[in-house]
Amino acid sequence: MSVYTAIDSEQLEAFLADYAVGELEGFRGIAAGITNTNYFVDTTLGHWVLTIFERLTTTELPYFLDLMDHLAAQGVPSAHPVAQRKGGFLAELAGKPATLVYRLNGASVDKPTVEQCRNLGSVVAELHRAAESYKGKRKTDRGLAWARATRERLGGKLDAESLALLDEELAYQAEMQDTFKTLPRGIVHADLFRDNVLFDNDHVSGLIDFYFACNDALLFDLAVIYNDWCLTDALAGREAHWTAIAQAYHRRRPLTDAEHEAWPAVLRAAALRFWVSRLDDWHFPRDGDVTHQKDPAPFRETLLHHRKHPPTLLP
Amino acid sequence: MSVYTAIDSEQLEAFLADYAVGELEGFRGIAAGITNTNYFVDTTLGHWVLTIFERLTTTELPYFLDLMDHLAAQGVPSAHPVAQRKGGFLAELAGKPATLVYRLNGASVDKPTVEQCRNLGSVVAELHRAAESYKGKRKTDRGLAWARATRERLGGKLDAESLALLDEELAYQAEMQDTFKTLPRGIVHADLFRDNVLFDNDHVSGLIDFYFACNDALLFDLAVIYNDWCLTDALAGREAHWTAIAQAYHRRRPLTDAEHEAWPAVLRAAALRFWVSRLDDWHFPRDGDVTHQKDPAPFRETLLHHRKHPPTLLP
Repeated sequence: MSVYTAIDSEQLEAFLADYAVGELEGFRGIAAGITNTNYFVDTTLGHWVLTIFERLTTTELPYFLDLMDHLAAQGVPSAHPVAQRKGGFLAELAGKPATLVYRLNGASVDKPTVEQCRNLGSVVAELHRAAESYKGKRKTDRGLAWARATRERLGGKLDAESLALLDEELAYQAEMQDTFKTLPRGIVHADLFRDNVLFDNDHVSGLIDFYFACNDALLFDLAVIYNDWCLTDALAGREAHWTAIAQAYHRRRPLTDAEHEAWPAVLRAAALRFWVSRLDDWHFPRDGDVTHQKDPAPFRETLLHHRKHPPTLLP
Repeated sequence: MSVYTAIDSEQLEAFLADYAVGELEGFRGIAAGITNTNYFVDTTLGHWVLTIFERLTTTELPYFLDLMDHLAAQGVPSAHPVAQRKGGFLAELAGKPATLVYRLNGASVDKPTVEQCRNLGSVVAELHRAAESYKGKRKTDRGLAWARATRERLGGKLDAESLALLDEELAYQAEMQDTFKTLPRGIVHADLFRDNVLFDNDHVSGLIDFYFACNDALLFDLAVIYNDWCLTDALAGREAHWTAIAQAYHRRRPLTDAEHEAWPAVLRAAALRFWVSRLDDWHFPRDGDVTHQKDPAPFRETLLHHRKHPPTLLP
């Protein structure tokens, strides 16, 4: 964990007194997550995850916590914050914003099965539809302006070939902005990597880590999934898996002609976004960030792949 | 099941279209429950219980459904209704009011362990405290006026000894009304029999069947529990079990002197309430009610027991 807030049981007991979840039985830190401190917490009434936010502020957090609540209320399997006695999901611990969520069963999987992929497609479609009635709005903070600013900072750090690729992709994305605006939009999770999806056997038991959620083209979520679930690591060539995701999604939220057409560009947008953020983390590590840095290279490969072989959205 | 509404998959699919829970995978009726029709429903997104209300009306139901949501939002393990896309928990199926709730893990137990009893005490205290912030109000419809009216109907059906006992108890309860008004009040579940509490190992995974919930003396819930969990059937003499419940409860919602004093009277009120309702069901069965009639006699025994041996609230 990049930043880590240590707490003791006395602090935690005082924190829990504002909730109806019973008495503390035990807790332990979770060695995962890049931007927040997480603990498993057991009380007489159940099992919870405590998140202490290291970067997000009390101004930003209600959008995410209320969204999670909105989705869980409709049955979309997702991290579900617990209300305090006085109402509201945003609490404070060790002087930082914090929240308690229901602990979900299940675990993320490295190599999802076709059946798991089908279930994911169904869940993401329901997420998009259930979020339609959510009142909150949030613009992405990882859009083109952010990518350009980051490229400026990275200028001196990259080799000429990478820099050229980056500039070409930025120019291409700039050209595509008007097209993207014509796509069906709504709230996207925006970070649906395999480690943010928990499975209980074949079923998604919960989507977690909603802290990049924003209003964007819905297709962006599918592009993040395609790149991570069907292309990177040892998962290349997973056509059957992708078909399962796309078909299940399409059954609940039919994909439009505009989306079919824009698919290669959106895939490149998603690859670029994570290539740039990983380059940024790599070359400008924040304090204590060393252990969880992720290699940017696979997203460069993904970009190059999409440029050579523009894929089909719904085979 | 006393009343049973049959549905087919076409009806259920149409019903589910108003929810974000994915597509129907299967369903089956649940052969339990006296007053509602229940189905297990499996969809691509999870496992649910569908309840079709056979007696409660669309006017009465929001109090219960909103209460269940209020409690689940605070982490109290309880049946948790799913919101429709348009918002709200009250739907319609086969021309009757219906709702979809998260299916809970776990099962009810016939012979709870001491550890399970301890956990129950903790959960009930949290239920009472979490409900303090609930805005809805509902008077019991099984109070003294109801008991008296039912006694009038039952007059010709009971033997002289039972009738004398019933009249004595009604007179005693009338005397106690002023005392009851001095007890800590709030929302009670009012029907916490063993079959309305699901356990996952030692932990309560959920309280179910909130459809008698009302504003009353909080002690009434403990009295229902004492009578069913520590006295009836083969459970008499379960002092250690009762101590576990009462101590765990007391830790989270300290019991008052007035409650200690009123305990025997409240135990008798709880026994009387179920003796009367079972006598009513027994002598005036509703259509189709035969299979799930419950024997009134144990509550008569419970009443006689409490008259002879007034127990202590917190040993």
